[in-house]
Amino acid sequence: MINETMYARGAESSIIREIFSYGLERKAQIGAENVFDFSLGNPSVPAPAAVNDSIKRSLELPSEQVHGYTPAPGLPACRAAVAESLNRRFSTSYEGKDVFMTVGAAASLTCTLTAITNPGDEVVVIAPYFPEYRVWIEKAGCTCVEALANEETFQINVDNVQRAITNKTAAIIIDSPNNPTGAVYTQDALERLADILREENKKRDPQNPIYLISDEPYREIVYGAEVPWVPALYEHTIVCYSYSKSLSLPGERVGWVLVPNTMPRAERVMPAVAGAARTLGFVCAPALFQRVVMDCIDEPSDVDAYARNREALAGALGEYGYTYVEPDGAFYLWVKALEPDAEAFCERAKKYELLAVPSNSFGVPGWFRLGYCVSYETIQNSLPAWRALAEEYLAVK
Amino acid sequence: MINETMYARGAESSIIREIFSYGLERKAQIGAENVFDFSLGNPSVPAPAAVNDSIKRSLELPSEQVHGYTPAPGLPACRAAVAESLNRRFSTSYEGKDVFMTVGAAASLTCTLTAITNPGDEVVVIAPYFPEYRVWIEKAGCTCVEALANEETFQINVDNVQRAITNKTAAIIIDSPNNPTGAVYTQDALERLADILREENKKRDPQNPIYLISDEPYREIVYGAEVPWVPALYEHTIVCYSYSKSLSLPGERVGWVLVPNTMPRAERVMPAVAGAARTLGFVCAPALFQRVVMDCIDEPSDVDAYARNREALAGALGEYGYTYVEPDGAFYLWVKALEPDAEAFCERAKKYELLAVPSNSFGVPGWFRLGYCVSYETIQNSLPAWRALAEEYLAVK
Repeated sequence: MINETMYARGAESSIIREIFSYGLERKAQIGAENVFDFSLGNPSVPAPAAVNDSIKRSLELPSEQVHGYTPAPGLPACRAAVAESLNRRFSTSYEGKDVFMTVGAAASLTCTLTAITNPGDEVVVIAPYFPEYRVWIEKAGCTCVEALANEETFQINVDNVQRAITNKTAAIIIDSPNNPTGAVYTQDALERLADILREENKKRDPQNPIYLISDEPYREIVYGAEVPWVPALYEHTIVCYSYSKSLSLPGERVGWVLVPNTMPRAERVMPAVAGAARTLGFVCAPALFQRVVMDCIDEPSDVDAYARNREALAGALGEYGYTYVEPDGAFYLWVKALEPDAEAFCERAKKYELLAVPSNSFGVPGWFRLGYCVSYETIQNSLPAWRALAEEYLAVK
Repeated sequence: MINETMYARGAESSIIREIFSYGLERKAQIGAENVFDFSLGNPSVPAPAAVNDSIKRSLELPSEQVHGYTPAPGLPACRAAVAESLNRRFSTSYEGKDVFMTVGAAASLTCTLTAITNPGDEVVVIAPYFPEYRVWIEKAGCTCVEALANEETFQINVDNVQRAITNKTAAIIIDSPNNPTGAVYTQDALERLADILREENKKRDPQNPIYLISDEPYREIVYGAEVPWVPALYEHTIVCYSYSKSLSLPGERVGWVLVPNTMPRAERVMPAVAGAARTLGFVCAPALFQRVVMDCIDEPSDVDAYARNREALAGALGEYGYTYVEPDGAFYLWVKALEPDAEAFCERAKKYELLAVPSNSFGVPGWFRLGYCVSYETIQNSLPAWRALAEEYLAVK
């Protein structure tokens, strides 16, 4: 008998995907330049030239060396390069053995969740949150528990986290710079989070701390903000990373899990991550792109393009009367819907060919997400439509 | 609390990996040319030139087009290319929508098993079998049930399969050309298998047939044998494929699942495969290598090199008094150990610097596996050692 949960996961159309499909249809009808699709998080900035240069260099190597199996945790030189890059940036002393190369951020998360939870556990997420977190948490047999962020700044609300914790809590997932809000969690907020987690751990068997999963695909996409290094603040932190955004390689599926050597019992956690990768069917991260990571480890992300988009979009929306959260990172603008029902608002926006994702998909009402990782032209061309939409609401008032 | 099952899966050293590590150490000690490592299935034949040509062409495309997210089931043109290639070869009428691109064979298997089983089900494997099957079956919450192959030909033994089936049987996995024996299942054997499955299905709810998972990474590696197209023989067949062996790309992780449009309820099975891929953390198959697959879809595998190795190794071993199964496909030779305890035999072989995998890892006693996907020189240089090992056993007798 087929698995009905899997059928439902495959058949249910994610709202984001549905909006994207609607956009494609609409573009075919009225021309791509007349549809303003802010629904996706597909980077518009091209991969740096160093990526293709690295690939071309690798193609000179013997076939088996470049396209052959790598060890399950990755090429030793690639793992070492990741560790050394972190050490340079965060004054840490990691080694290659602390890094497990993965098939992208989704794999980093499913391997980590599978490794450090048991069926019946609870995992806390900060709402609004990336909707796949719930899917992956539930696949691990756990319950997804939502802790609301601060409703104005969308910083982590530590009191809400504290209330969400029970003796079944195995882990908390944070995601800063945040998708969908663009918030970057402050050092202060993270320190307070670490304090309450340590407080909670005191009541527990030392074998059973609450793990903090820091999902950081947007770490490099920031506009002047400092992104604190979370393992320095809380010793039971596992970092999940991906090169989808920083190197604009979302289709190539390469990232890593870091189990820092400063973590008590890291020597138990890392094999569990490896075991999870093995049992879920990840043999190794794509070999050619492990070499790309090695070669491009300190390649800067082109944040300028996103910064320009952010300024143009946020500036104009503010002028037209929209309220938004000042995004310190990622490439999303989190905007208050002009009526309480975000889905109704986004439906109305479609009349102006504006495609946005209502906040309900992210676990909270009343807001919408705009991915500004689009072309600058799209932003410019969309502005009259945003203005007209705001005016329609003002007229109703 | 970390997951103890995952910890064990990660910490347990697979026998194959252990032998491989021993070989590396030994090579460092006495020189690579003096160690004869037949433990692995890493293709020694380079990827065809068309692979690197395809990559170079793709690098001319806009970055977003080549490295961006693809749809979860794969690039439409890639899926269509796979379907059309199958149609040309097997006179089928598949469409792109029947093909789901995966992150290699392991992903094909875990997605399929997760899609079509429920915890508590049973999945039958033909012993000897690829040891990861058990890991993946158990991860899906199912019991791995072994049905012994014919003990001389290592063809499928349909009576044993029939005895292994219960009302909890969700699926059977077959793997032809076979790892580890090199056997290619005959049309006749597969027809008899289909008959007993259909017989069993008559006792069941039509919603709940036994699925046949045909794992075919070695389909192209054959020495004159015909590999029957299994979905033509049994309508509830799902095919799992990978380009690891046929295009010598094991590190790049690209393959597919076919849910044939001739399968009753394919429209329920395919979304379940997609749901499984999503929940396990596979976002899409690596984008660049989906283009490689499109471009190299009918690229012939270089079987000649393996054929030459096979002839040299099998011929010599036969001459020295070893009994082996004539391999019709794959690049493994399945040889009878010269004492009942295959592990003891393989230990003794190490004295001659011969590294082989004892059959216990594959679920049966008394044999060993030689991967002859090594260089021709390795085979030639190993022959005196094989002869000396045989003579040692003859002397003992």
